Amino acid sequence: VPRAGAGFLDLPARSEKPRSVGLTHVLDKGLPLADVRHLLEIAAPYIDIWKLGWGTAYLDPSVPDKIVLLQEYDVLACTGGTLLELAWLQDRHEDCLSWAADCGFPCVEVSNGTVGMPLQDKEKLVRAAAERFTVLSEVGSKDPAVPVSPDGWAEQSLADLDAGARWVVAEGREGGTVGLYRPDGTPRDDLVDRLVSVVGADRMIFEAPRKDQQAWLINELGADVSLGNIATVEVLGVETLRLGLRSDTMHVPARSDDSQGPA
Amino acid sequence: VPRAGAGFLDLPARSEKPRSVGLTHVLDKGLPLADVRHLLEIAAPYIDIWKLGWGTAYLDPSVPDKIVLLQEYDVLACTGGTLLELAWLQDRHEDCLSWAADCGFPCVEVSNGTVGMPLQDKEKLVRAAAERFTVLSEVGSKDPAVPVSPDGWAEQSLADLDAGARWVVAEGREGGTVGLYRPDGTPRDDLVDRLVSVVGADRMIFEAPRKDQQAWLINELGADVSLGNIATVEVLGVETLRLGLRSDTMHVPARSDDSQGPA
Amino acid sequence: VPRAGAGFLDLPARSEKPRSVGLTHVLDKGLPLADVRHLLEIAAPYIDIWKLGWGTAYLDPSVPDKIVLLQEYDVLACTGGTLLELAWLQDRHEDCLSWAADCGFPCVEVSNGTVGMPLQDKEKLVRAAAERFTVLSEVGSKDPAVPVSPDGWAEQSLADLDAGARWVVAEGREGGTVGLYRPDGTPRDDLVDRLVSVVGADRMIFEAPRKDQQAWLINELGADVSLGNIATVEVLGVETLRLGLRSDTMHVPARSDDSQGPA
Repeated sequence: VPRAGAGFLDLPARSEKPRSVGLTHVLDKGLPLADVRHLLEIAAPYIDIWKLGWGTAYLDPSVPDKIVLLQEYDVLACTGGTLLELAWLQDRHEDCLSWAADCGFPCVEVSNGTVGMPLQDKEKLVRAAAERFTVLSEVGSKDPAVPVSPDGWAEQSLADLDAGARWVVAEGREGGTVGLYRPDGTPRDDLVDRLVSVVGADRMIFEAPRKDQQAWLINELGADVSLGNIATVEVLGVETLRLGLRSDTMHVPARSDDSQGPA
Repeated sequence: VPRAGAGFLDLPARSEKPRSVGLTHVLDKGLPLADVRHLLEIAAPYIDIWKLGWGTAYLDPSVPDKIVLLQEYDVLACTGGTLLELAWLQDRHEDCLSWAADCGFPCVEVSNGTVGMPLQDKEKLVRAAAERFTVLSEVGSKDPAVPVSPDGWAEQSLADLDAGARWVVAEGREGGTVGLYRPDGTPRDDLVDRLVSVVGADRMIFEAPRKDQQAWLINELGADVSLGNIATVEVLGVETLRLGLRSDTMHVPARSDDSQGPA
Repeated sequence: VPRAGAGFLDLPARSEKPRSVGLTHVLDKGLPLADVRHLLEIAAPYIDIWKLGWGTAYLDPSVPDKIVLLQEYDVLACTGGTLLELAWLQDRHEDCLSWAADCGFPCVEVSNGTVGMPLQDKEKLVRAAAERFTVLSEVGSKDPAVPVSPDGWAEQSLADLDAGARWVVAEGREGGTVGLYRPDGTPRDDLVDRLVSVVGADRMIFEAPRKDQQAWLINELGADVSLGNIATVEVLGVETLRLGLRSDTMHVPARSDDSQGPA
């Protein structure tokens, strides 16, 4: 198992796998199997959950092999929520869960951000899925026109956890401009605060596809905040952000103004 | 050959290879051979044409091997138009076509978006190339300052087809902010409409590098619209968009307003 | 060793490795070893320096093997400046340099863009590092709020060279919106001019992560300008820009206006 370097630096405390906090949740948009293996060889200690985004798993013939590979590196493979939403829309959600089980997924995501699934149906789905899988529920709409309510998100998160979800994923999408984020990508801090205080940082995974969003969450909530929708090429970069090994999150003590040379 | 999943969903009708409509045309900016192989192993059914962008093929020693590999997966390798434009500028276009034939390219692109090649020269080039290759002609300038004329594009497309082009590629570049698109990336819908009605969707390939552009074209023209300049990492994602397996193109029936919980 | 194509085009003069001008300096954010190998197989002649960005090398167990691999292709592996800055902040800079030597790095970067290191300390670090390594010093802050002074950058560059740096890297970050660039990414031309006239283009490496920035520098300073923070997926693309094999840098003679057809 690869581990951090020569140990000559003092770094923030950081949990180890299997983690309940400080998870890195990766978004896979269709990465070929060989690339998954090569990434795991250097970064497996920094990856906890691996989501096969939206409906990509439905088209990728390598999914069962990918799940086995991820398992060898103690990474939980997870379905995309949109796939189960579409199945629900077509009254095929049980077929979808059976397919996920046949593929070998240890984890499924239950969301309602696209199809407007009523909350009672979502909770029923969480309950059904939790009998066979580790469940990640997602809160928040993918539609930027849907108003974002901190109280609504917190309430729904608690209901999902009560129905059996292990973690709640706060919506940010691949682009980072909806849900948790304003259209310009800046975080809705009131929403994050509410989720942390009502639901708890240890049950929330914050989708944070952009570096500025990752840095903001780490600076606000610490190295062991759970971050979601991390691009596969950014996994090592996100771990350096957690550990203050990049400018954006490095702890630099204040200095007197005249100590610097010309900028 | 990899095929779509367990079949538990109803999905839109979709053509199969070899396709005349619904092509996915990929932009390769210099992907190493091993990566091409790994992508084809999972996504070959969703890739029709593979363009070695602009002049990259001139520098990449693996091109002949790449073309053979693509052929094994029934994918047409195509030269970048800019390379032939530069050759034309130096009066080396015949050398360029001979080189393409020696490399094994089944397909070449003929464009005039950079060098201001007169239309009669372009058509001569299309005619010459069509004797040995499947020809994609491109319409539109890469220069955002050149005004875009729907009538001009349609007329030029018809002339290129008449000269022997198999498909016409509508310019959008790698960035998606010129030609088919306004500087902010939104599609010029009047231009798309004109090309579809005059030239026909079955002869047009629309360059669409951005997800919002891909989704717009699919929502407007259906799963079997031909899309060009797709990034290699987005191939599987584009296929999910075609099939309504992603939020942006999923067909969701209208619901009564009170069925949703808190957003 | 891979070399340029069939030679049917006239292209600008271009230096060959080992280069003192016209360097391409790549930013590696954590690329798996196999991917590095595959890229080198097609693009090694176009890569001179390979930076393991900021603190990523501290976490990546494959670093010593990566350095050996790069050496086989005559590419200089270089540490990220931020790692040494953090070590300096913790008074561990000597441990950091020893670690770099143990890993096999031939090259280290010395910067002060994050921690506000006084100039005399930076020069001491450059001097110490230059005893064992090829040194790249970096000028410029990563903080967009720090004012940019052409005279200050030029003066600091000369001091770094005097202390033993081989090249000076002008800050642009991964995003290309600080230091050399305005917040919208356009180059600060007065800064570039000053650095070229005072320090010399043969001692400067300009960080240029974006295509428009690369094209601007090539159009201004020629094919053999040294470019830094090039993304691994853009290496071949950057070489085509240097050689005028892409629209953005192609030399097109002025033509009479009426030679073009409808746009």
